[in-house]
Amino acid sequence: MITLASDFGSPYPAAMKGVICRQSDARLVDIAHDLPRQDVRAAAFWLAQTLPYFPPAVHCVVVDPGVGTDRDAVVVRVGDHALVGPDNGVLLPAARELASVAADGAPIEAFTWAYDDPASSTFHGRDVFAPAAATVHETGVGALGGHERTTATGEYTDLWLPESVVGDGHATGEVLVVDDFGNAITNIPGRVLADAFGGQVAIDGESVPVRRAYAELAPGDRLVTVGSHGNVELAVNRGRGDDAFGVVAGDGIDLQWGASR
Amino acid sequence: MITLASDFGSPYPAAMKGVICRQSDARLVDIAHDLPRQDVRAAAFWLAQTLPYFPPAVHCVVVDPGVGTDRDAVVVRVGDHALVGPDNGVLLPAARELASVAADGAPIEAFTWAYDDPASSTFHGRDVFAPAAATVHETGVGALGGHERTTATGEYTDLWLPESVVGDGHATGEVLVVDDFGNAITNIPGRVLADAFGGQVAIDGESVPVRRAYAELAPGDRLVTVGSHGNVELAVNRGRGDDAFGVVAGDGIDLQWGASR
Amino acid sequence: MITLASDFGSPYPAAMKGVICRQSDARLVDIAHDLPRQDVRAAAFWLAQTLPYFPPAVHCVVVDPGVGTDRDAVVVRVGDHALVGPDNGVLLPAARELASVAADGAPIEAFTWAYDDPASSTFHGRDVFAPAAATVHETGVGALGGHERTTATGEYTDLWLPESVVGDGHATGEVLVVDDFGNAITNIPGRVLADAFGGQVAIDGESVPVRRAYAELAPGDRLVTVGSHGNVELAVNRGRGDDAFGVVAGDGIDLQWGASR
Repeated sequence: MITLASDFGSPYPAAMKGVICRQSDARLVDIAHDLPRQDVRAAAFWLAQTLPYFPPAVHCVVVDPGVGTDRDAVVVRVGDHALVGPDNGVLLPAARELASVAADGAPIEAFTWAYDDPASSTFHGRDVFAPAAATVHETGVGALGGHERTTATGEYTDLWLPESVVGDGHATGEVLVVDDFGNAITNIPGRVLADAFGGQVAIDGESVPVRRAYAELAPGDRLVTVGSHGNVELAVNRGRGDDAFGVVAGDGIDLQWGASR
Repeated sequence: MITLASDFGSPYPAAMKGVICRQSDARLVDIAHDLPRQDVRAAAFWLAQTLPYFPPAVHCVVVDPGVGTDRDAVVVRVGDHALVGPDNGVLLPAARELASVAADGAPIEAFTWAYDDPASSTFHGRDVFAPAAATVHETGVGALGGHERTTATGEYTDLWLPESVVGDGHATGEVLVVDDFGNAITNIPGRVLADAFGGQVAIDGESVPVRRAYAELAPGDRLVTVGSHGNVELAVNRGRGDDAFGVVAGDGIDLQWGASR
Repeated sequence: MITLASDFGSPYPAAMKGVICRQSDARLVDIAHDLPRQDVRAAAFWLAQTLPYFPPAVHCVVVDPGVGTDRDAVVVRVGDHALVGPDNGVLLPAARELASVAADGAPIEAFTWAYDDPASSTFHGRDVFAPAAATVHETGVGALGGHERTTATGEYTDLWLPESVVGDGHATGEVLVVDDFGNAITNIPGRVLADAFGGQVAIDGESVPVRRAYAELAPGDRLVTVGSHGNVELAVNRGRGDDAFGVVAGDGIDLQWGASR
């Protein structure tokens, strides 16, 4: 199986699929091709949320503002998974998630991928990463280290999503991404709300109900919940949380709990 | 084969696919993931239009404003097809269409699906319905009744799309949905226009030409036609019918024919 | 393998997939379903860019403003590829590209495809082209000429994308399409910039840097580059070229090089 993720929109991913299908009969599954454009951090978040649900696969990821510069192509192996993409850190948060759910404590191993001068300087998805993913799939993830194009490396670009600061009854964090529903997903861990469900917390000083499900409140009502990612999320039942809370990705969030219950 | 339909946008459906691929090698086909958000009726319409064209499959449907509340998960069997989704009626119009096209007069059989406390209260698509669909696929639709998680039930939520009232030369109905082209699809059956093609009808009192094909008129011209769903549709050649007729889903439509020809 | 391309948006393509899956186990790959609506020329451009990357396949294309009129359905064969769609020229630029990359100088052979009165006058994608593509796939591209529904024809609608005029240090062309990134893709061949990289050219009289990669400049800077299609492209690093240059598809472009270096 080869999964595909990019910020390419349409129809560029189809050329990648054509290239892969000429090299491999691998099953293809799209993760998304409308990842926030050239936003390496947002892509890293979504991949970390999504890839651990997959069986062993080669994951081809192209969110690549540096395309055509001298940034490397990398392959990151975690157990039976391989992630292929530009060396800008986009693969690493997902690699850590894959490592954390692996039964056998699989290490994260990185390789640079040597590529020939590609046909284009602007579409390495088609000319570099799709062929690399197909080759890794056909060679086998287990044989990666011995492939003529790979060189094991400890010098790759890493990326860590920003962490929140959690104190006693108080946390400060930020909005990592806004999803298609308008839910503002923060980096504050959902465990801080463990005793708050059914009550209220303060978001940037304003009291907001905490509920497990959107539909526990009336349509249009604001709420704080814990999303499927396990993080604190600012939402509106049948509406957009980002609009109702006036936040966009990157905005700081101040959360207080306990006092008002 | 497992088909997938939701209002999730992107990239949430990818996590559902990962979950399914860990349980099953079933072929996956997307119906749509941009169904009108939290609009159970519109989703029911599109599923009823689309699923009958498929070979026997498990159809996983998640348009679920009540996620995380105590609404049940249901599996509806129609012959060799099974529909898996929330108990809010979204599956039933499609189930009736599947029954009506089945050669052998297949009955509609409903089962509640017992699920464990899911990992999230907000993403049952990933945590409840995807695993259920994969399990039904692997168990086999024919063996559904004997599965430990299923309980046959006659008490499920049904949903009927609103029906139009057809009289002699006159019908009143409403716009069910507007498609991506801007065509306003009504619930008035196309048969009322059988003798009107090439002539005119009155829509809310205004005379409009009736044509079989958009391109029978000049670009930008309004027309009434019978869409691929068999219903009366308000359209514009190479334009948007909803804008030109000033209608949105849910608006009442008054149609008169015969007199003006 | 059957590829699918249309301007249908969602969820209409799903009905086409259902129809095909009832006739064939062919692998399905989406090219795009958000091709610019009813824009035969833009669709022809994208297909010509994309289909040559695929292994032999049946390519089902439905951008069809004339649906329901008496325009023919055609099948165009190029070696082991077959293209199925309306007789409006949309298939021909891709067919020529497929012929140009074929090792054996495959000819372009066109057949009309006889279809029965379809169920709808508005959705031949579902009622004509999907069944035709599945039939061609099952019959085999090699056996196309002998199929009861095919008639070899030399009288089909052709379509040529407009060509630029290239002189000495000067070219005039036009914007063919704008991609999802906002890159304005012209019909001026990239070879005219062979000696200009790192320097400047004049676009409609204004001096603009020429670079191989977007990221050679600061975010927000305009540039001229050669895109993955091999044509001159007007772009902005991490921004939209169409907005920055004030152009839309169809606009004329005047390019001068050499003098200003």
